[in-house]
Amino acid sequence: MAEFVRTEGVPVYVQIRESLRAEIAQGLLKRGEQLPSENELAAKYNVSRMTMRQSIEDLVDEGLLYRRHGVGTFVAYPRLQRDHTRLTNFFDKAENEGFRAQAKLLSMEIIPAAPKVAEALDIHTGSRVIRVKTLRFADGVPVTVHDAHIPYKLFPNLASENLEIQHLWTIFEKAGYRVKRAVQRLEAREASKEVAQLMKIKEGAPVLFKERTVYADDGTPIEFTYCYNRGDLYSLTVALER
Amino acid sequence: MAEFVRTEGVPVYVQIRESLRAEIAQGLLKRGEQLPSENELAAKYNVSRMTMRQSIEDLVDEGLLYRRHGVGTFVAYPRLQRDHTRLTNFFDKAENEGFRAQAKLLSMEIIPAAPKVAEALDIHTGSRVIRVKTLRFADGVPVTVHDAHIPYKLFPNLASENLEIQHLWTIFEKAGYRVKRAVQRLEAREASKEVAQLMKIKEGAPVLFKERTVYADDGTPIEFTYCYNRGDLYSLTVALER
Repeated sequence: MAEFVRTEGVPVYVQIRESLRAEIAQGLLKRGEQLPSENELAAKYNVSRMTMRQSIEDLVDEGLLYRRHGVGTFVAYPRLQRDHTRLTNFFDKAENEGFRAQAKLLSMEIIPAAPKVAEALDIHTGSRVIRVKTLRFADGVPVTVHDAHIPYKLFPNLASENLEIQHLWTIFEKAGYRVKRAVQRLEAREASKEVAQLMKIKEGAPVLFKERTVYADDGTPIEFTYCYNRGDLYSLTVALER
Repeated sequence: MAEFVRTEGVPVYVQIRESLRAEIAQGLLKRGEQLPSENELAAKYNVSRMTMRQSIEDLVDEGLLYRRHGVGTFVAYPRLQRDHTRLTNFFDKAENEGFRAQAKLLSMEIIPAAPKVAEALDIHTGSRVIRVKTLRFADGVPVTVHDAHIPYKLFPNLASENLEIQHLWTIFEKAGYRVKRAVQRLEAREASKEVAQLMKIKEGAPVLFKERTVYADDGTPIEFTYCYNRGDLYSLTVALER
């Protein structure tokens, strides 16, 4: 811990918070590193546990630290910040934001559409859909499980495409459907066993779940996707007008 | 359990899934009720555990069932679906969507702005902000902890307003600032002890976290808020154009 000198006129919890922030910025506290307990930190800084807790709480709010229930407080990794003010795809984004994107195909099958999938895609329940599951990596770290359902009728040749090197939307466009609009519903969920294993997180850990319908420029729904994003590594930004 | 008769030509897991869906719709399986274990269900339906799991998995994906890690599978409550295709507030929304909205003031204090808050509000670090914490209820159930920071300079009279009966934005408008735009960053996080206690959920349960800056029509940032929404009861929808 860097030397800590109190300054008069500034609340102590603010001074400690800024001291911790500086230690993180300077790499004295490393990403992923566990902090000492609140009691230990309170003793080191010679403050009450309440004061210590307030300093930490502020940095948790900011996302610089995070708590793992029953384990402790850790220095957060920078999140993959997805800008959703415009509709973009993972691969476009990577190019602009400077991370390395990869996809691994987990499975591809042709199955009858479940009622919810059918409704979203405006097809009959039981009609054939191509279900494509991929695991997506940012800089080598698995961040997203992408479980897409695509009407077979519209893209009968999809199964012969290499989905690890091209995005689904590229294939849609080759078939004459330009992706124009998406509606997505967001939830925070617990990671299922499958999702947890794929993304190497604990079962029950928070995931940002997206349920998304993608529309072509003529209004045709062309993709319905369940998307599971690692809660500790992923955030997305949206802008709203009144 | 309702009588289950197999139909030829339809995959068994689909038949079971639809049978479970019907039981939920008819109220034979009640919201919040725990399902028997997969083994028990597999035995009752006389199918393999893999088949049973697939039926359940589909309904979990749809949000009709949810899993609690280490506990079991439950029938989901309908989520409060917030439509974020336009910027609206909790109280406006309630009126349109037919739920009863209430707010309970948890605390109001005037504090020096932390660096992150100051940056969002375009004020100096340490400038005074009014921090207003409220707990928000939909139909009597606590769904959101709302932790807002407002520049004191712009709204010196805020502290004398009744924030349980009026929304912050109403007060902003009385002071001549019309809410026009918001930028929000979304994450899935674990509930902290405080947030868990307030919303009566387990510590570590998933929450949909929003970090939001609200702008007036002249571009002035007037509110910076940390917002914690119960993961099991809250979803929000956004529409995006390419």
